[in-house]
Amino acid sequence: MDITSYLKNMQASVETALQNGLPDESVRPAILHEAMRYAVLNGGKRIRPILCLAAAEVFGQAPDAAMAPAIAVELYHCSTLVHDDLPCMDDDALRRGRPTCHIKYGAANAVLTGDALMIQAFQILAETGTPQLVLELAQAAGSQGVIAGQVEDLAAEGQTPSADLIEFIHLHKTAVLIQASVRMGAIVGGANPAEFEQLSVFGQKIGLAFQIEDDILDETSTDEVLGKPAGSDLEQDKMTYPAVHGLAAAQAKVSELTGEAIVALDTLSHDTQPLRAIAGYLVSRTF
Amino acid sequence: MDITSYLKNMQASVETALQNGLPDESVRPAILHEAMRYAVLNGGKRIRPILCLAAAEVFGQAPDAAMAPAIAVELYHCSTLVHDDLPCMDDDALRRGRPTCHIKYGAANAVLTGDALMIQAFQILAETGTPQLVLELAQAAGSQGVIAGQVEDLAAEGQTPSADLIEFIHLHKTAVLIQASVRMGAIVGGANPAEFEQLSVFGQKIGLAFQIEDDILDETSTDEVLGKPAGSDLEQDKMTYPAVHGLAAAQAKVSELTGEAIVALDTLSHDTQPLRAIAGYLVSRTF
Repeated sequence: MDITSYLKNMQASVETALQNGLPDESVRPAILHEAMRYAVLNGGKRIRPILCLAAAEVFGQAPDAAMAPAIAVELYHCSTLVHDDLPCMDDDALRRGRPTCHIKYGAANAVLTGDALMIQAFQILAETGTPQLVLELAQAAGSQGVIAGQVEDLAAEGQTPSADLIEFIHLHKTAVLIQASVRMGAIVGGANPAEFEQLSVFGQKIGLAFQIEDDILDETSTDEVLGKPAGSDLEQDKMTYPAVHGLAAAQAKVSELTGEAIVALDTLSHDTQPLRAIAGYLVSRTF
Repeated sequence: MDITSYLKNMQASVETALQNGLPDESVRPAILHEAMRYAVLNGGKRIRPILCLAAAEVFGQAPDAAMAPAIAVELYHCSTLVHDDLPCMDDDALRRGRPTCHIKYGAANAVLTGDALMIQAFQILAETGTPQLVLELAQAAGSQGVIAGQVEDLAAEGQTPSADLIEFIHLHKTAVLIQASVRMGAIVGGANPAEFEQLSVFGQKIGLAFQIEDDILDETSTDEVLGKPAGSDLEQDKMTYPAVHGLAAAQAKVSELTGEAIVALDTLSHDTQPLRAIAGYLVSRTF
């Protein structure tokens, strides 16, 4: 299959759904709805929604059957980026080559924009009428999921590199949400428990691989390619996989995890070609 | 009925449920779970959960039948207080006589604590298996609910007092969530559409009355009684009902709204005595 055009088509569908899933800028308060759209409609790669759609597709669902959880997970992801960039958090001024939300709208509005995006995600999931989807996002996002990773990530700045700690951070800050994206697609697809479990393993493995690849790119790429300052992890004294294990071991780990992710798909009797192709793309991407 | 002991019993049940509904401090990351508990278990009045429980009780439900939405709405409310108090928002150092969350745990952890409480609220609602409850909170809390009120409240600081604007702010920042508390209780109680509508009107009216009373107390009470600096609205140049209409008109409005709230209950053929008593209490409270 042609993964490039597959991803391009998926991205276009997700983009349209995100456009429609966000309140119009004319709705009061206009500044809030403008900021919400600014924070989301920024040319993101949409990895999480595409994985959600592709997981549902495994079970023969139409390409947009899982669009509601797909955009919900992306809205939640964008909310974490808005909060992460705040002056009291990572204090980042640039994202995807544009001023971050708090630079453009002020810190107070950025806090509220992040909150509003988070709630919008849950609203969209509630509208599906499937409480299991709400539960998936809440468990992945909450104090024992993404937020646990963020808290430990902030606390780890400047600390001695530790293999245990970096695994906890990557698993929680990134992998659980990517895993939840796949799981939500599997729920919509009607996966049986064994299939759900295998897809869950796949999601976790590629989630970890994705974050390690991100760490590697931050160290080896350029500002222009990344759309944000390269080397910012080093500058902020962030704990990264390469900082703990070295670049070569990081690259080897990405390959190993991707292999394990693909093996997890082998027991499924369905067409998992798109998921395999996405996994391959995630390892070979340059930004 | 003895409203004081009714409220005291309800508060005790809510407190126990909140204790149990929050992850233990020993769960990693300990600082996050400690901060979540600190921000919630602070001796709050628990008006919103009590209204939720009392609304379900109207339909003969056991006192704790609506405990899940009751604590969810309180967790969400507490999350907004944590974010409101942030240095980039209202910059408040004291709440209920104790240091605010960001003073005690730092601004970054306070942002994440608010996020985690918000998500915990949705998780608890999802666990009920009733998507309608998730939808009620999401709609009340989101960019056209509480957050709309907060955005306009911040933008209104220092602006010329305006009757339209203060109504928008009070309706969104406070009344919608109190209304949602009552509506969620009515959903659990199995209200028919007409009953649901009347309880919804009741919730909105007492929500508005509650916020105007809050404005009045901020102007007329003392630091000791409020547990936070009295007169802080004036100091921060906040738009309040008394600032727009004067104290006497504010007091008259509280009575008028309370009267209308109670009239809304008259068409219900159930025992609405607790709801009436709570409405009466909200007008006569001193803090």
